[in-house]
Amino acid sequence: MKRVKLIIAYDGTAYHGWQIQSNARTIEGVVTEALTSLLGTAPELIGASRTDAGVHALGNVAVFDTDAAMPAQKFAPALNQRLPEDIRVLSSEEVAPDFHPRHCESIKTYEYHIYNAKMSNPMKRLYSHFSYTPFDIELMREAANYLVGEHDFASFCAAGSTAETTIREITEIEIIETRDAFAASREIIIRVRGKGFLYNMVRIIAGTLMEVGCGKRTPESMEDVIKAVNRSAAGPTAPACGLTLVGIDYM
Amino acid sequence: MKRVKLIIAYDGTAYHGWQIQSNARTIEGVVTEALTSLLGTAPELIGASRTDAGVHALGNVAVFDTDAAMPAQKFAPALNQRLPEDIRVLSSEEVAPDFHPRHCESIKTYEYHIYNAKMSNPMKRLYSHFSYTPFDIELMREAANYLVGEHDFASFCAAGSTAETTIREITEIEIIETRDAFAASREIIIRVRGKGFLYNMVRIIAGTLMEVGCGKRTPESMEDVIKAVNRSAAGPTAPACGLTLVGIDYM
Repeated sequence: MKRVKLIIAYDGTAYHGWQIQSNARTIEGVVTEALTSLLGTAPELIGASRTDAGVHALGNVAVFDTDAAMPAQKFAPALNQRLPEDIRVLSSEEVAPDFHPRHCESIKTYEYHIYNAKMSNPMKRLYSHFSYTPFDIELMREAANYLVGEHDFASFCAAGSTAETTIREITEIEIIETRDAFAASREIIIRVRGKGFLYNMVRIIAGTLMEVGCGKRTPESMEDVIKAVNRSAAGPTAPACGLTLVGIDYM
Repeated sequence: MKRVKLIIAYDGTAYHGWQIQSNARTIEGVVTEALTSLLGTAPELIGASRTDAGVHALGNVAVFDTDAAMPAQKFAPALNQRLPEDIRVLSSEEVAPDFHPRHCESIKTYEYHIYNAKMSNPMKRLYSHFSYTPFDIELMREAANYLVGEHDFASFCAAGSTAETTIREITEIEIIETRDAFAASREIIIRVRGKGFLYNMVRIIAGTLMEVGCGKRTPESMEDVIKAVNRSAAGPTAPACGLTLVGIDYM
């Protein structure tokens, strides 16, 4: 028996999120089907991040156990032959039997993309949130600084979370701006890194930083938002399509 | 009666190209339907570039004549309410009655995007051509230089063209490289500017430059390809999804 680790990239547009559901198409469901067709039996797939409907990934991680003779490295190409083009297994390798994608310590990197222009762009619509409001990036950076470190992020946790504690550590938030002279547009990328995230946490952070960027809140008000320990103190949950799980680094 | 000029952006993925067809969904067809619903009668839409199935645009141009009282500027928002999200009218303005999108002199800018990495990326698949071959950008730049200027581009013209002459002028070709450290990938953008293009010309240029980039042809061989005045002398037609009509500048 060996444990195989997959790194999986997907365009989440057509899926109801990661987690398998009996009546909806999900990433976990489609990858499990491909594995079942390959192995002859349905393995239990353990995913690192249960991304929401419409959220994308460039490097989610999942493991499964198998006693198949096939070398671990061969699973990536064999699965890609059985998967639709909007899901790609980037690599497959054997890992220790006690490696667990959620319980082993890791740093996750998420990016929230905002397409900021007078008019929306059909070629950006699936992978970014469109806003015509001109954002003040410097204010957003100031506000983001309050979030870095270990805090009780209850104000940034959607209802329905089953987390035992709402204390989390954000190790880094970068706010990156890229401009396109042709389209008279810019993209604002909120890149958040941390050891673990609560339900909808990055999208609520993005929604709150956008309110700072357009002057609805001050950067200093973030201190009160954190202290409130109450979801209603933070801004709205930004739309799913803007969010991408970029990658997971295990210690 | 006034002539209204539209600048139109679209994700060409779901369309059979620009030109209206009775039995297929096209950009011209869908924009004409939206105009018809707005005006009550079907106007004749004259487009600048009849982009192929799967090709994208950030700034195609089209005009129509109308005696509607609505100010020209109001057409963009009114049409966007009636159009699907993968087509956006970026602007609408009144132009001289003799302005013709194809006959008036202009410079068109096209970009061909190549996603160059070991593994394809589901989030790039709709707007770029994937290749795992490592391309030599400098060789591609050398080859591109042979194409700049006025030439007989018959070797770069697909069969089925009804053009009276195959002489065209390319004013500029830039080859731009952008790297993504996270995804260990790069994107190669071939940006071509010129006064007019033959059928499939930019895609055949892209296909030929890729052959130079992977060492199948030398940059110097481009001289012979041009001189051959024969489609079979050039490389393959690169896939449609990598091509975007970025914009059209009228003199």
